[in-house]
Amino acid sequence: MFCALKIEGKMSFIDLFDFIGTFFFAMSGTLAATSKRMDWFGAMFIGFVTAVGGGTVRDLLMGVTPVSWIQTMTYTYCILAAVLVALFFRKHVMQWRKTMFLFDTIGIGVFTIIGLEKALNADILPALSVMMGLSTAVVGGVIRDTLCNDIPLIFKKEIYATACLAGAIIFLIMRKLGVPSEINQMVAIGTIITIRLIAIRQNWSFPRFDDTK
Amino acid sequence: MFCALKIEGKMSFIDLFDFIGTFFFAMSGTLAATSKRMDWFGAMFIGFVTAVGGGTVRDLLMGVTPVSWIQTMTYTYCILAAVLVALFFRKHVMQWRKTMFLFDTIGIGVFTIIGLEKALNADILPALSVMMGLSTAVVGGVIRDTLCNDIPLIFKKEIYATACLAGAIIFLIMRKLGVPSEINQMVAIGTIITIRLIAIRQNWSFPRFDDTK
Amino acid sequence: MFCALKIEGKMSFIDLFDFIGTFFFAMSGTLAATSKRMDWFGAMFIGFVTAVGGGTVRDLLMGVTPVSWIQTMTYTYCILAAVLVALFFRKHVMQWRKTMFLFDTIGIGVFTIIGLEKALNADILPALSVMMGLSTAVVGGVIRDTLCNDIPLIFKKEIYATACLAGAIIFLIMRKLGVPSEINQMVAIGTIITIRLIAIRQNWSFPRFDDTK
Repeated sequence: MFCALKIEGKMSFIDLFDFIGTFFFAMSGTLAATSKRMDWFGAMFIGFVTAVGGGTVRDLLMGVTPVSWIQTMTYTYCILAAVLVALFFRKHVMQWRKTMFLFDTIGIGVFTIIGLEKALNADILPALSVMMGLSTAVVGGVIRDTLCNDIPLIFKKEIYATACLAGAIIFLIMRKLGVPSEINQMVAIGTIITIRLIAIRQNWSFPRFDDTK
Repeated sequence: MFCALKIEGKMSFIDLFDFIGTFFFAMSGTLAATSKRMDWFGAMFIGFVTAVGGGTVRDLLMGVTPVSWIQTMTYTYCILAAVLVALFFRKHVMQWRKTMFLFDTIGIGVFTIIGLEKALNADILPALSVMMGLSTAVVGGVIRDTLCNDIPLIFKKEIYATACLAGAIIFLIMRKLGVPSEINQMVAIGTIITIRLIAIRQNWSFPRFDDTK
Repeated sequence: MFCALKIEGKMSFIDLFDFIGTFFFAMSGTLAATSKRMDWFGAMFIGFVTAVGGGTVRDLLMGVTPVSWIQTMTYTYCILAAVLVALFFRKHVMQWRKTMFLFDTIGIGVFTIIGLEKALNADILPALSVMMGLSTAVVGGVIRDTLCNDIPLIFKKEIYATACLAGAIIFLIMRKLGVPSEINQMVAIGTIITIRLIAIRQNWSFPRFDDTK
């Protein structure tokens, strides 16, 4: 989240991917809520904050208010659709695990690069812009897990923060080299997606700290 | 929370009800803290964030800063009084359960409509203004339960989000029809209170999702 | 957190202490993360939010954005160093417990007075400025414990909120009396540190509320 969506006029590929990311983040929130036996309101609330949480925190830190998603209905429609799909088809969703995982990965990649570019455009220092990009991608999931009373997954099992970091650094370097923004976005997002897919296939994970040893 | 309080000059009925809501939200936070065996600071902190959390998040999302409660002592006095009452009389409070529940319900109704109206006045789209109203009413309790390490009650057992939604929609329709604001507020808040009271009496609740079946 | 750091020109003692506080807050977050068996990203994320959380919430409530730490690399370098020290030496850190505790106490004292002074300078009412000071000192730890799925320590066992409150009130009184800011800062911070050290040595704690009795 969130680039300014241009519903009228041509929609760029990153706008489309932003939607895909928002949709699948909202689904993941809703499914987390139903797995905790919540009702429609819990499912909706957590679906929503999972999708908009990262972009909201980034916007607040940077002082960009009102935050993007309360200035247009677009995100809300997208999220409502995702929540309904998740609720109605949740028994079947398990069969689509691989598809969902792919789209979720696309979302993470897109959110990272959108957040990074927004911060750079607001003259935030490059290293801090990378942090804004990562926040955009991970904070929604952190809030989702906290509201579900779990320790956030990304602090323990997931490798995708590292994939986001790699993609963000590649984006920074290519931007420095003068690569046009659209190409740069595609390459950086592609890198994030590729690393995460390989990591999962190879069952990579980082060593966790164990204070008992 | 929070309409601008007019301590001087005439106080409108919604200002009075805003106080009542703030007071009983703070009490509910304090009682939640003592039930988790916290000390004075935990009781105070959680009492405070329960009362101001919803309005604060709404203000931040909309870019209204400094947030209302740090511009006047009024809310702080109201909350301190509530915390003290809750702490000193907590052994007796159980006997007042019905009274407390009534005032808490009033608070929820008032907070919903205050939040909704503030958002509409700031030119937020109607559907998103409804979300701002609901946030004002529920986010304080969500933070309270999260700090107490519980899954928020409103995601599981409580029906009041639905009551708030109904009241907010009625308010929107009547506003469109040109009903004067004061009357509209009273009817919408009355609707929320009535639905919640009936729901509790009839033991209504929404089906929860159960992924194990 | 955070006074504007003057890297060029003379660095005041409060700037130095602000660093010390940031450093040890980040260490405490990192150590909390490793004790929950998180990976590098969890350790980094929690180290970061523990160090900047209090100042960030204060800045957001007061409408000071972009928040201080995304306007300079200084805090980020300081926190990265702290996270690395905590990760590499975590087996030995237990032996430095007393030293760490001392620096952590310095951090709490400094953060309280920095937050208080920032709020006063922004024309926030004195009692509310005290709350901003306390928030600066405690909110980072509250977020740390919440992300680690624990009830915040400061709500149960720690007495340091009271020490901060005492120091903040002394600062207010001396400011009223016209004591120069630098001297006032030193005395108030000294008071906070002294009370906390004595409290720990004497094993002071506040009675916790127990609803079962």
